[in-house]
Amino acid sequence: MADQYAQYREDSGPVEIPAIRWDEPPEGPVLVLLDQRRLPAEEVELVCTDAPALVEAIRTLAVRGAPLLGIAGAYGVALAAVRGFDVDDAARALAGARPTAVNLAVGVRRAQAAYSAVLSGGGDPVRAAGAALAAARALHREDAEASARMATHGLALLDELLPGGGHRILTHCNTGALVSGGEGTAFAVALAAHRAGRLRRLWVDETRPLLQGARLTAYEAARTGMAYTLLTDNAAGSLFSAGEVDAVLIGADRIAADGSVANKVGSYPLAVLARYHHVPFIVVAPVTTVDLDTPNGASIEVEQRAGHEVTEITALQVAGVEAGGGIPVAPLGTQAYNPAFDVTPPELVTAIVTEEGAVSPVTAEALAELCDRSRQVTI
Amino acid sequence: MADQYAQYREDSGPVEIPAIRWDEPPEGPVLVLLDQRRLPAEEVELVCTDAPALVEAIRTLAVRGAPLLGIAGAYGVALAAVRGFDVDDAARALAGARPTAVNLAVGVRRAQAAYSAVLSGGGDPVRAAGAALAAARALHREDAEASARMATHGLALLDELLPGGGHRILTHCNTGALVSGGEGTAFAVALAAHRAGRLRRLWVDETRPLLQGARLTAYEAARTGMAYTLLTDNAAGSLFSAGEVDAVLIGADRIAADGSVANKVGSYPLAVLARYHHVPFIVVAPVTTVDLDTPNGASIEVEQRAGHEVTEITALQVAGVEAGGGIPVAPLGTQAYNPAFDVTPPELVTAIVTEEGAVSPVTAEALAELCDRSRQVTI
Repeated sequence: MADQYAQYREDSGPVEIPAIRWDEPPEGPVLVLLDQRRLPAEEVELVCTDAPALVEAIRTLAVRGAPLLGIAGAYGVALAAVRGFDVDDAARALAGARPTAVNLAVGVRRAQAAYSAVLSGGGDPVRAAGAALAAARALHREDAEASARMATHGLALLDELLPGGGHRILTHCNTGALVSGGEGTAFAVALAAHRAGRLRRLWVDETRPLLQGARLTAYEAARTGMAYTLLTDNAAGSLFSAGEVDAVLIGADRIAADGSVANKVGSYPLAVLARYHHVPFIVVAPVTTVDLDTPNGASIEVEQRAGHEVTEITALQVAGVEAGGGIPVAPLGTQAYNPAFDVTPPELVTAIVTEEGAVSPVTAEALAELCDRSRQVTI
Repeated sequence: MADQYAQYREDSGPVEIPAIRWDEPPEGPVLVLLDQRRLPAEEVELVCTDAPALVEAIRTLAVRGAPLLGIAGAYGVALAAVRGFDVDDAARALAGARPTAVNLAVGVRRAQAAYSAVLSGGGDPVRAAGAALAAARALHREDAEASARMATHGLALLDELLPGGGHRILTHCNTGALVSGGEGTAFAVALAAHRAGRLRRLWVDETRPLLQGARLTAYEAARTGMAYTLLTDNAAGSLFSAGEVDAVLIGADRIAADGSVANKVGSYPLAVLARYHHVPFIVVAPVTTVDLDTPNGASIEVEQRAGHEVTEITALQVAGVEAGGGIPVAPLGTQAYNPAFDVTPPELVTAIVTEEGAVSPVTAEALAELCDRSRQVTI
């Protein structure tokens, strides 16, 4: 990978985490990523000078998280255009880098459409490249704004559900600035509560098998200065039992038309625990996560991932271990059940918070109305 | 540790796992342990030639599991006696090696009492040492017999609750031959179902943070030839949701007089999931686990363990990594909530299976009666 190189950041501030950044000349034009594979041990920037370098970064999870992948894809198209490479080739490679990430293809198409529109209108490639970059920047900005609005709506909902303040919030997986153009989804709500002086503690599930909670959410929480505590996923039950959880806040990978929520595996057990203990279970996600073409939870296909993520501690989980071949923790030949996410039915979800407001109770009608409203706003 | 040395086993059969063995001369007298720190990567025997070596093995978790610790403690006293060391000194050191393990102290006292009784009766130290060894052997044999009876009662209960057969059983932590003089507690029931041709699958929770499920239960399951599948603790919800779990079988560290069950952290979330999905939740433990002096769940003190078990992947979890200092998976300075076990209230426990039979429903009266019956049998 001649066109993707790492540089150590010299000036890391206490809060600012640029998961993605576009640099103009003289350093650029380049796309600069925070290499998420090496967190929390090292903050290393990965500099992509062309689309193939970005494709590699996406494939190897140096950049990840649905909204952020969309932004990266759009910038990748702009990068190809600005540097004079074949834009359609770049778009095809980028969109296919992770086939299950819908946002990635959407972001790619948006920048590609902006580029093509200028060319079709008789504009030159330089102006077309400028349009692609403008589209990527717009997506980046919109995502940041959506984060901010989700945070506002989410905090208002928390304050309504828990009027006493001093929120103790349990979260799962990673939903902050590392997956977003802004401050994220569920994590952004916790951060808003922290800034308002109303977060007592963020409980961070480690999130096996890939430990996104331990590696990434703890990293983000530490940088914000909020009070946070890490726990194994199976210790959440003890917290509920002790009355130490006021609300659960999670993100979503896909929300079906009936309100079923697909999210990182381990979300559903939290929903059942929350119900048993009468604790609100709140999903925070942009409206684009709602997929009206998926009628219900049963129609969501659950990705089964490789068993070695469970039977071995892999390089992706443990910074500092050489890549390629993890450390076995189970006998050779052990078969593992390793679904990437699980599905929580709408009756266990207290509310879904989006940039357009909260839906509660979660019903097919309310979600359809939300999507309608969102389309009116954005078209 | 000059008196504790490792030897590789040459003759490991497919099923026989001697977690503990007393060797007579010419090899002995020595106490031979299967070093559980090095499983599943290596089957290494640890040979203890005196009580201090055994104390070290207990402290470093080379030998672990409540019933097995009791047996080890008794043999340790016998070892000191047979080799002519001070028996009271040895007994004191052994009983204090892990202060929370009640069984350890009970086993030590039993062998010590047998030794002292012979001396008080005018017998010589050689005869007294023989009596200590006989007491250890008796405890070992009784524990094996209790395992066998728990397995019989547990399988009968399973067959009654699930008349169709083809049991798919979910288990947590490690409850097999590695913690027992026999074949264990919950695992022994699954093994009985397997031998009877009625086990369809054993679902093995990996059991974070120390991965006893991945490291030890998967190892034991593999050796028996049963169908088993490993999963992260948080993936159990998906299995319940898919209707893939017919029963949960776990062990217990302590059972309060009201039937509250303290067991490895992660047991309680399984109990809540089992209840939500109408799946039997069955606890398998010897009668000695019932502690009538502990009135209820709230009076069980939950041991909080060191946070580095969560924030680092440690040598104990990962065979092959040098001891001392794990690999960090969370930012430096991250605080962790790390309770060793959790408490499941009796209303979530379908049955408690002991060597004296099953108690269901679980009530204070039924447990008191069981303990009475057991005392009549053993006195």
